Amino acid sequence: MLLDSLNSVEDLRKIKVEDLSSLADQVRRYMIDVVSKNGGHLAPSLGVVDLTIALHYVFNTPSDRLIWDVGHQTYAHKILTGRKNDFLSLRQFEGLSGFPKVAESNFDLYDTGHTSTSLSLALGEAVARDLSRKKHRVIAVIGDGALTGGLAFEALNNIGHLKKDMIIILNDNEHSISKNVGAMSKYLTELISGSAYNRLVRKVRKLCRKVPVIGKYFPYLYDRIRMGIKNIFVPANFFEDFGIRYFGPVDGHDIEHMIHIFKRIKSINSGPKVIHVITKKGYGYKFAEKEPVRFHGTQPFDVDTGKEYGKKKLSFSAVAGKTLCSLAEKDSRIVAVTAAMSTGTGLDEFSKKYPSKFFDVGIAEQHAVTFCAALAKNGYKPYFAVYSSFMQRAFDQLIHDVAVMNLPSVFLIDRAGIVGDDGETHHGLFDVSVFKTIPNFELLIPSDGEDLRDMIYYAAKADHPVAIRYPRGFCGIESVDCTKFRKSDFSLPLKLSSSRDLVIIASADMKICAMEVSELLTSAKIKSGVVLIHSINALDSSEFRAIIKNADLFAVIESEYSRGGLSESILSILPEQKRSKMTASFGFPRKFIEHGPVDLLYDKYGLSPQKIASDIIEKLKKK
Amino acid sequence: MLLDSLNSVEDLRKIKVEDLSSLADQVRRYMIDVVSKNGGHLAPSLGVVDLTIALHYVFNTPSDRLIWDVGHQTYAHKILTGRKNDFLSLRQFEGLSGFPKVAESNFDLYDTGHTSTSLSLALGEAVARDLSRKKHRVIAVIGDGALTGGLAFEALNNIGHLKKDMIIILNDNEHSISKNVGAMSKYLTELISGSAYNRLVRKVRKLCRKVPVIGKYFPYLYDRIRMGIKNIFVPANFFEDFGIRYFGPVDGHDIEHMIHIFKRIKSINSGPKVIHVITKKGYGYKFAEKEPVRFHGTQPFDVDTGKEYGKKKLSFSAVAGKTLCSLAEKDSRIVAVTAAMSTGTGLDEFSKKYPSKFFDVGIAEQHAVTFCAALAKNGYKPYFAVYSSFMQRAFDQLIHDVAVMNLPSVFLIDRAGIVGDDGETHHGLFDVSVFKTIPNFELLIPSDGEDLRDMIYYAAKADHPVAIRYPRGFCGIESVDCTKFRKSDFSLPLKLSSSRDLVIIASADMKICAMEVSELLTSAKIKSGVVLIHSINALDSSEFRAIIKNADLFAVIESEYSRGGLSESILSILPEQKRSKMTASFGFPRKFIEHGPVDLLYDKYGLSPQKIASDIIEKLKKK
Repeated sequence: MLLDSLNSVEDLRKIKVEDLSSLADQVRRYMIDVVSKNGGHLAPSLGVVDLTIALHYVFNTPSDRLIWDVGHQTYAHKILTGRKNDFLSLRQFEGLSGFPKVAESNFDLYDTGHTSTSLSLALGEAVARDLSRKKHRVIAVIGDGALTGGLAFEALNNIGHLKKDMIIILNDNEHSISKNVGAMSKYLTELISGSAYNRLVRKVRKLCRKVPVIGKYFPYLYDRIRMGIKNIFVPANFFEDFGIRYFGPVDGHDIEHMIHIFKRIKSINSGPKVIHVITKKGYGYKFAEKEPVRFHGTQPFDVDTGKEYGKKKLSFSAVAGKTLCSLAEKDSRIVAVTAAMSTGTGLDEFSKKYPSKFFDVGIAEQHAVTFCAALAKNGYKPYFAVYSSFMQRAFDQLIHDVAVMNLPSVFLIDRAGIVGDDGETHHGLFDVSVFKTIPNFELLIPSDGEDLRDMIYYAAKADHPVAIRYPRGFCGIESVDCTKFRKSDFSLPLKLSSSRDLVIIASADMKICAMEVSELLTSAKIKSGVVLIHSINALDSSEFRAIIKNADLFAVIESEYSRGGLSESILSILPEQKRSKMTASFGFPRKFIEHGPVDLLYDKYGLSPQKIASDIIEKLKKK
Repeated sequence: MLLDSLNSVEDLRKIKVEDLSSLADQVRRYMIDVVSKNGGHLAPSLGVVDLTIALHYVFNTPSDRLIWDVGHQTYAHKILTGRKNDFLSLRQFEGLSGFPKVAESNFDLYDTGHTSTSLSLALGEAVARDLSRKKHRVIAVIGDGALTGGLAFEALNNIGHLKKDMIIILNDNEHSISKNVGAMSKYLTELISGSAYNRLVRKVRKLCRKVPVIGKYFPYLYDRIRMGIKNIFVPANFFEDFGIRYFGPVDGHDIEHMIHIFKRIKSINSGPKVIHVITKKGYGYKFAEKEPVRFHGTQPFDVDTGKEYGKKKLSFSAVAGKTLCSLAEKDSRIVAVTAAMSTGTGLDEFSKKYPSKFFDVGIAEQHAVTFCAALAKNGYKPYFAVYSSFMQRAFDQLIHDVAVMNLPSVFLIDRAGIVGDDGETHHGLFDVSVFKTIPNFELLIPSDGEDLRDMIYYAAKADHPVAIRYPRGFCGIESVDCTKFRKSDFSLPLKLSSSRDLVIIASADMKICAMEVSELLTSAKIKSGVVLIHSINALDSSEFRAIIKNADLFAVIESEYSRGGLSESILSILPEQKRSKMTASFGFPRKFIEHGPVDLLYDKYGLSPQKIASDIIEKLKKK
């Protein structure tokens, strides 16, 4: 096998062009094997195996700078750049990351995970190169989905202005995570359909060059005529409007042809260029081709059937989706919004049941929030379901467009806290500090699926913005009746047990952990009470003040950073009580947290029940 | 005078079209008079007086929904919609806001102040209208500068997809705050230069309609041919690429013509439309026309000479700019970046001295941050100077593109804390909570211009990201030598005075206030010491732990929200010392703060030295 003897990009470049296609097959086979065991972003990575080979074949990486947008599609890139064997440890604790990681290889230029950053990075690279009078190429690979993010557009505007030499590979697969939507997507499709025009243009170009007088004015006239002809066949070219030369479309599974095109464009030494490459998500594995959304990010699965192993437990996302469906049956104001994450956030059923009330705005969190503000202003009740780490994109819109006017939108913050295998860029460790600080916002934290359901019902009646944060995965209970709800006052602290000695105050999502800590302390003959915080507003209640007034010893447990998190808010109000004799806070330290199994990471950072309990015991000894 | 008897939009609609031009002159005159006394955003508001009149004349506001992007250009809008007399109180405490305010009038639909939000809001309005089966128009007015913000692009992508009936007025004045830059700006200019083609298109349209067979296929064929012709004269149309019909350009100072066009387009009842209107910033006041940047936001000035009253004191922004110039002389790695705020952030001199190291990326904070990340990665030292409240736009990029990789970019956070007259949307009250929480970031707070200079020098050598936050305006000292610097260790607390009783811990920017509090307490026979915090890292130092260990009483003074701010971090580490007998924290409450003079706002929220001192005295009495 070609792959067996391939250990570096130098090895790759020695392979004959006509053999690259079978190498691609071998890479795909290997990738499918590993991901079927470890889970991962299979469909996007399968889609760009051929493209990855062509890029590393033509460009002199790592001297030439290759930047992958998002980075979940870099499995082939990793396998081809000296990490073939390490790839077996993909997404495992202390193993290879599922995203580019500078620490892994000098072929990975940036640690990434969010979309639409590659164009800004590539422009920075090109500017730095020119300032340093270096000569290498800069290449960014960006998907059509990522192109809808506002950040990418801001970069295009600046790229067209600065006119630096760089190559943008537009990896057009018509799928970002959900089926891609928006005017940009439609536009690209039309652009492809006009590919016949390219041949015509080439003929016109040749003809024009031969006419002596026109030849002189050729660059100007040619451009004008070319655009004129082009627009009879295809819509106007968005990229050329911005001063970026457009080439394509190119078949992203024809390695030879891509190599030919890349070589030609490589020789054009000035200005920004975009090459429109068409790929198929999941290419080469029939189940992934058929179900690219399901295989965007997958758990371990059976290669022969494509089925995931094990039975999935009821997730918070599923409860959110089902509850919204139930709510919408009775309440015509309910509207659901997603930023290209319909499946991930559990909104598929809603999208089918209430298509006129469902809005997938594309990868556009900023717009999603401001759009929700206007819906709320007009009496609707928008629920924007979004992953915690992607919500960071819309921090200003939460403040400026929602909170300033106290507009009653609801934000379902999915994947809050540690997410596990996706690591640094995907953990949701900032949402508590964000929402606790923004005025008018009510931050709610369910401890299980039933709490989440009740909070979603509650939020429908709220006259202010509400954010509900919940972790990835299992909602703590096997089944939830989403059609009924309990009226609970989440703005009060919930006492699970009492003690005059030690009070354990826990963020509600840490309920199980807090209860286990309390049990472990009991075994060590230390009495403790557990109080759950379901709402940041609970801290301001007289009930909470009474609880902390009557105790001497405190431990706070939360699932985010202690700095800026719940524990700071709680501990900062303790001293007024003049009785605190011991306090301990358990949250993540102020550093980025790597990928790995959730429980393992909790334990590593001292947040497992065992570690918390023994920490408390130690502290009490020293007192 | 027409203006004298005008008290409502109904009055406006009764005026004859031919008299509207003199009304516009009267509005401008009045506006200049008031702003010359109160200060304000004169140039943008002057530029759209004619447009504002035409819009309210044609559209049935407030039933038709008119949304102004940013909103600093709404002075004529306010004068014409029943707030003519209130306009005398513009930007004064408890007077009219300089931005749209829902509480002021039902003609102001949203409280705004940041750019690029109007398209998302308008789309939300159009969706809500259609869901409710209502029939009114939705109109958004957006500047060419605001169009470069990624949020606007995300909205356009969604607008082109949903195809809701709405009108976008593109107010093209080639200036946002600084001279507008970027590919979009160049593109719009080319679009204007092709206006002759419009007449041609109309002729072709008429001709086509007369041919029976073509007539049938007219809508499709016409569009194709039209675009083809158009692209020989003007570049491809960006908006039509997105499925948004384009009309224009239209002279934004010809009221009659605008009324004619608006009426025609109003009658087109389906789909999104953009009308490209050309205006001149500062129109009708020669000084503002000549210097639109200087008159973008102005202090009170002499109408006859255009000169601002009083002598300007040395600002933090000026010190930042001068220091960067000095630094760049010796250090070739220094690069300065602004998001269309060159003048406001003090970078004009740098931009002239080091044009190849200066980057104005347009209104694009997200891109600015990610672009800086790549420059830092390549060994450069980018300084991104930005207002605190606009920095909120790039929260995710700070985390994902800078902090995760610990890239040594520098962020000069100007206008931190209360900014005064611009109010809610412009106060910088979130930066401490943001930067204290993001791992790897060092947050620095200068107490005066010399501190700022030293911190900018220090940051050039730092191997991690640094954010330096400083308030708007006077830097506390009359002159600063920006070519030399003192080596100070800002990561230690700075003891200004000692006391074993009460320790006043203050954010360094509150130095003067803290010292005055201490003096007032001395007069009341209470001894106190003052400790300044220049860096969030100081809290983790053993020196700081020693200070708090040796005291019983604490007061923390800061210039941001207490919730999420410095005081939470400080108070949360006190209890461990087991000795705290009294604590008080002085910061802003968790609510949005209105506009008004800075000192007045500090006093209103209990943060003047007098109020802080008497609060402490009260607390000590109760102890």
